[in-house]
Amino acid sequence: MEARNVLRFSFLFLGVSLVLLFTFVHLPYEPPRMTDLLDCATNSPWCTSKNRIQTKQTTLLKEPPNPKRRHNHASDTPHHPLDPLTIQELKKVRSILSSHELFESSSYSLHSIDLEEPEKPLVLKWKKGDPLLPRKASVVARVPGKSHVLTVDLGTGHVTVRESGLHSGYPMMTMEDMTLSTFAPLANADFNRTIVQRGIDLADLACLPISTGWYGTSEENRRLIKVQCYSMEGTANFYMRPIEGLTVLLDLDTKQVVEISDKGREIPIPKAANTDYRYSVQELHQAMNPLNPISIEQPKGPSFTIEDEHLVKWANWEFHLKPDARAGVIVSRAKVLDPDTGELRDVMYKGFTSELFVPYMDPTDAWYFKTYMDAGEYGFGLQAMPLDPLNDCPRNAYYMDGVFAAGDGTPYVRSNMICVFESYAGDIGWRHSESPITGMEIREVRPKVTLVVRMAASVANYDYIVDWEFQTDGLIRVKVGLSGILMVKGTSYNHINQIPNQENLYGTLLSENVIGVIHDHYVTFYLDMDIDGSDNSFVNVNIKRQQTSPGESPRKSYLKAVRNVAKTEKDAQIKLKLYDPSEFHVINPSKKTRVGNPVGYKVVPGGTAASLLDLEDPAQKRGAFTNNQIWVTPYNQSEQWAGGLFVYQSHGEDTLATWSDRDRPIENKDIVLWYTLGFHHIPCQEDFPIMPTVSSSFDLKPVNFFESNPILRFPPNVEKDLPVCKPAASV
Amino acid sequence: MEARNVLRFSFLFLGVSLVLLFTFVHLPYEPPRMTDLLDCATNSPWCTSKNRIQTKQTTLLKEPPNPKRRHNHASDTPHHPLDPLTIQELKKVRSILSSHELFESSSYSLHSIDLEEPEKPLVLKWKKGDPLLPRKASVVARVPGKSHVLTVDLGTGHVTVRESGLHSGYPMMTMEDMTLSTFAPLANADFNRTIVQRGIDLADLACLPISTGWYGTSEENRRLIKVQCYSMEGTANFYMRPIEGLTVLLDLDTKQVVEISDKGREIPIPKAANTDYRYSVQELHQAMNPLNPISIEQPKGPSFTIEDEHLVKWANWEFHLKPDARAGVIVSRAKVLDPDTGELRDVMYKGFTSELFVPYMDPTDAWYFKTYMDAGEYGFGLQAMPLDPLNDCPRNAYYMDGVFAAGDGTPYVRSNMICVFESYAGDIGWRHSESPITGMEIREVRPKVTLVVRMAASVANYDYIVDWEFQTDGLIRVKVGLSGILMVKGTSYNHINQIPNQENLYGTLLSENVIGVIHDHYVTFYLDMDIDGSDNSFVNVNIKRQQTSPGESPRKSYLKAVRNVAKTEKDAQIKLKLYDPSEFHVINPSKKTRVGNPVGYKVVPGGTAASLLDLEDPAQKRGAFTNNQIWVTPYNQSEQWAGGLFVYQSHGEDTLATWSDRDRPIENKDIVLWYTLGFHHIPCQEDFPIMPTVSSSFDLKPVNFFESNPILRFPPNVEKDLPVCKPAASV
Repeated sequence: MEARNVLRFSFLFLGVSLVLLFTFVHLPYEPPRMTDLLDCATNSPWCTSKNRIQTKQTTLLKEPPNPKRRHNHASDTPHHPLDPLTIQELKKVRSILSSHELFESSSYSLHSIDLEEPEKPLVLKWKKGDPLLPRKASVVARVPGKSHVLTVDLGTGHVTVRESGLHSGYPMMTMEDMTLSTFAPLANADFNRTIVQRGIDLADLACLPISTGWYGTSEENRRLIKVQCYSMEGTANFYMRPIEGLTVLLDLDTKQVVEISDKGREIPIPKAANTDYRYSVQELHQAMNPLNPISIEQPKGPSFTIEDEHLVKWANWEFHLKPDARAGVIVSRAKVLDPDTGELRDVMYKGFTSELFVPYMDPTDAWYFKTYMDAGEYGFGLQAMPLDPLNDCPRNAYYMDGVFAAGDGTPYVRSNMICVFESYAGDIGWRHSESPITGMEIREVRPKVTLVVRMAASVANYDYIVDWEFQTDGLIRVKVGLSGILMVKGTSYNHINQIPNQENLYGTLLSENVIGVIHDHYVTFYLDMDIDGSDNSFVNVNIKRQQTSPGESPRKSYLKAVRNVAKTEKDAQIKLKLYDPSEFHVINPSKKTRVGNPVGYKVVPGGTAASLLDLEDPAQKRGAFTNNQIWVTPYNQSEQWAGGLFVYQSHGEDTLATWSDRDRPIENKDIVLWYTLGFHHIPCQEDFPIMPTVSSSFDLKPVNFFESNPILRFPPNVEKDLPVCKPAASV
Repeated sequence: MEARNVLRFSFLFLGVSLVLLFTFVHLPYEPPRMTDLLDCATNSPWCTSKNRIQTKQTTLLKEPPNPKRRHNHASDTPHHPLDPLTIQELKKVRSILSSHELFESSSYSLHSIDLEEPEKPLVLKWKKGDPLLPRKASVVARVPGKSHVLTVDLGTGHVTVRESGLHSGYPMMTMEDMTLSTFAPLANADFNRTIVQRGIDLADLACLPISTGWYGTSEENRRLIKVQCYSMEGTANFYMRPIEGLTVLLDLDTKQVVEISDKGREIPIPKAANTDYRYSVQELHQAMNPLNPISIEQPKGPSFTIEDEHLVKWANWEFHLKPDARAGVIVSRAKVLDPDTGELRDVMYKGFTSELFVPYMDPTDAWYFKTYMDAGEYGFGLQAMPLDPLNDCPRNAYYMDGVFAAGDGTPYVRSNMICVFESYAGDIGWRHSESPITGMEIREVRPKVTLVVRMAASVANYDYIVDWEFQTDGLIRVKVGLSGILMVKGTSYNHINQIPNQENLYGTLLSENVIGVIHDHYVTFYLDMDIDGSDNSFVNVNIKRQQTSPGESPRKSYLKAVRNVAKTEKDAQIKLKLYDPSEFHVINPSKKTRVGNPVGYKVVPGGTAASLLDLEDPAQKRGAFTNNQIWVTPYNQSEQWAGGLFVYQSHGEDTLATWSDRDRPIENKDIVLWYTLGFHHIPCQEDFPIMPTVSSSFDLKPVNFFESNPILRFPPNVEKDLPVCKPAASV
């Protein structure tokens, strides 16, 4: 029963009307005691925390999460202009807002409360020791029928209404939106009847809130969500037991059922057998030879430090790191040391996951709308759960907590949300042996050690692992790993030979009655590159075949590099082409190396997929930021979210594609680079019942940024420096 | 002076005529004493060995190479039909050949002596405990003017001449070809005169043997090589000090100078300053914070075993591993355990680096011919130097030696040529957390541990690191890392503002007087996939946009997977397309999963570059195996080397492209998959004076091969199993 401990419908069924009527977020609200707050025990059901975990009897979590440090966030104070809002500051925002006229109405919800970062020039000028810049909060609030963007000045208490619904679309859902939606259908008798008629115990029900996208349907001008349900009977992996064809359309503000689409009653619910992935329930006959313990060990401790909770210093890197409810992880002010001058040089002002787009490839009633935008709809950071020490991150990891606000403004702590660790996989930083051809006795090799910043967001079924990996040679690798559980479709088919035309299955038969539906993942990154300062240019270094003239050479052809500096945004709308390749440089045209090359970084695309949907498809219009793999825009503080600020049910008129089509000048300007990692996913049986991680990455790599190899003087490993280890059991 | 210890031209200048006349490889030859042979001290100057290293005073190599094991190969005996020839067997081949009529002439050279693998059906049938299959050697020999391919039966002593120069092209060079070519120009007075006139001390000269390619020039019907030289004065990194424009054309058989092209006298030799990369000569002011020691530790030892020197068993994998003079590393009979049945299932019969193609993009006199094929011209395995313990591979690595034969047939040992180790980078095998949406207390994560097989070939300046990485989820990742030193061009330019048109530079100005010339790397892999048996099909699973019919769905489009089984070879000549994507499956059409999917593996392309050279360019004709990224051919024991068996100076009439154009049936046949990894390399200053590693990889990944996730039952890490480590200094 332990898997069902929150969705206790037997209890909820009685209480749900009461819940909807009386406990929907409103003010005034008795503030929780601080101990409760930080323990995350009482007031925030969505606050999965190490503390809460430890108060429960559970066999699932065996490790004490990060026992070495226990940080009390109650007394946190900001030290850097980009530090996120602290608990005290969030409380202050809540208190300021509670006396503002907008919130005098009976109910409202706060969809996000984030630091409003100071203007970029002020941050650039700020140095440690300077007085902190004025602290402001950016708040997205919803008061019945209307969304507002507010600025709250924490110093003066002044509230400015910045915007009130300029575009279509609604704010990111609150956790309350999501959790309450999963219960709301139970208030509907028709819903309960069909569940029971399908032979499902209401106590075994697990429901998911599915963003509706936007399809120009009649239900305009209201926030909507679709709820689909699963049977938890016999497995924690309810995702593999869909109640296919049943979709409940809810009003997200009132949580009232708008419509129930009740199809697919003839489709059986797939069996629970072999779907549970938890270690505790596995039969432990294991054919595979067990592996001996293996660990990354640093007995002298890690080589990085984290100053004032957010400023990471490692090897030749320094950057500001913070959790964010929408983006997940924000890396700011990344600077790398110049080995010749000893100076810290600007590389990136800000980088983060701006938006995701996950369209499923099934046009039928219960599936067509599944075209998720996980950051702007669900909050990529809100879904980032505490990392599992020793498994999500190696033993030598440091963990950073997130501090977020609930829908009523109450702050809470998401513990162990980000980890930072040094990685050594046995790889080689650089090497050269002299060969027998010259016979010289040279073998010079340097190990490759990197610093990884990781978070893992579980957006319901899917898990996204996002790594920012810093290399000593100046390279930043951004890697996205996909794991977790497929979103599957129920079917009456048990075997492929029953299927008239497999192409019309919209996916792969993974197990009896289970189809893994084809889908794509696009993860779009905002990369405000500042190469030695803000004014940069984007250069397409095109690799072109050049034919030789007759008699010029025994060769008929060779490749040359042709540099094209992008003048305006449209010059930088890039679709990658294998047979028309380019390097993509962000350079500082005013800063040259000794021999005259402009200093720069290039974006090196990794394994990439492109969206192939019709550009006029409503889904693709909203996801138009995936129409190119690379874009460059002039810096604009309001253009950070590739799908628009209000993504939920948006029509797609405020995306990166719209901004870029303005075709503004981008040469020698403060520019932002956008890169989209893509994955086509045709599920296969190996993805059942849980998917081995699939990763893809892109690099930001110095190109004539340094005068020469910056890790030339890096020392090799020698035996005497390495640790002496014993098996734990022998100690 | 220690960097010059072999190229002591002051000595050689006196002795070179003598060398050329009397010590050129010939029989009869006094066999060396066995102790000398295994010490590699006396008879083989190309045999860079741990033993030889230790007898010299050198500060370059600080680690005792692999002190834990010291294998005496003198008594090796074969245990598996695919085991490479042993020292005893190589000696026997030499002895059999010495009495063969072909070798009665005064001089000959043996360009390769390899195991002639038994017929595939015999190997497939063979089981441990069966008598070993008859041992045969395949020998490529050159007797003046002619190349022969011979089979030597080691049991009967019978010699069969299999082929004698069917096609254009010559065998792989011997190490003697290469080393003697670097000295040969010194016998020419004109050469010495121009060196001295350019202000270079002959004692500072280092020369490289550069394969000529083939350009239909008048010098047909003779083996040729071009030699270019560098100044070693003041640096071990002579590659950065080219004597630009001086090219000596040599007859490779006689080592006589055919022609000297003496241009570019006005081009200065770039300075030595800041070019040496050795740790011992670095100034140790280091601005970067030093890193604390970090190590992959397995105090209970590695989890793999290597039976009979070549059969690797790890977790759910078993495969045969051997060094090869031409391919470098050969992985054979790779099988993976089925977790449901406990049975070892065939995945790949044989996989190896078949050929490389490295065209430089400069059509001028001293550069146009640089279009290397490193495996077939230089021997990718011959160039694989002993790995540097702790730096090339982590501390927990096992090292495997190679046993090769010199040009006269004398066996020698290349120690520590391959390493095998378990890697853990802190990555995640699979994971899922339940999110606050459901509120279930689940956090299940599995660490990702892999087994890596590595070698590093130093083909003169460049270093290629080739990894075969086996994952417990059944995936094989093949990764190529590029490091080492650029092939650079001298120039009179010191600064870019002196250059009228940078596009005509053929590269990047890296330092004063140094241009890094643009080039490509293609590495083509032979992958004889046997998915649950030899008869397989290749399926292009095309991802296609499907428009919906009006009224069918609010969506206008979705993607569907359309399976096309390749009937003949031309159906499987694949150019990758971002906007017309496919998955590429090798399936067994006769073996289905429980629900009816054919079992298979897919090749997952990594970051790839395509050759853009004119198809009619002589270089591209020889490198025509790079015309597509993927090819599939029917299994044919003679079609293993993508550029042809005799690649040196070949005209390109016997490449993979030629074979594939025969368009033979490949459906439900024993098929071979070919995949080419590509890199465009526009050098940048960070590549000077030695390049940080750049890697690219592709995957062979199970797709409906297993009934479900094969690592579902894999345990998580728990603290009590992990090692207890102390800093070495505190012990």
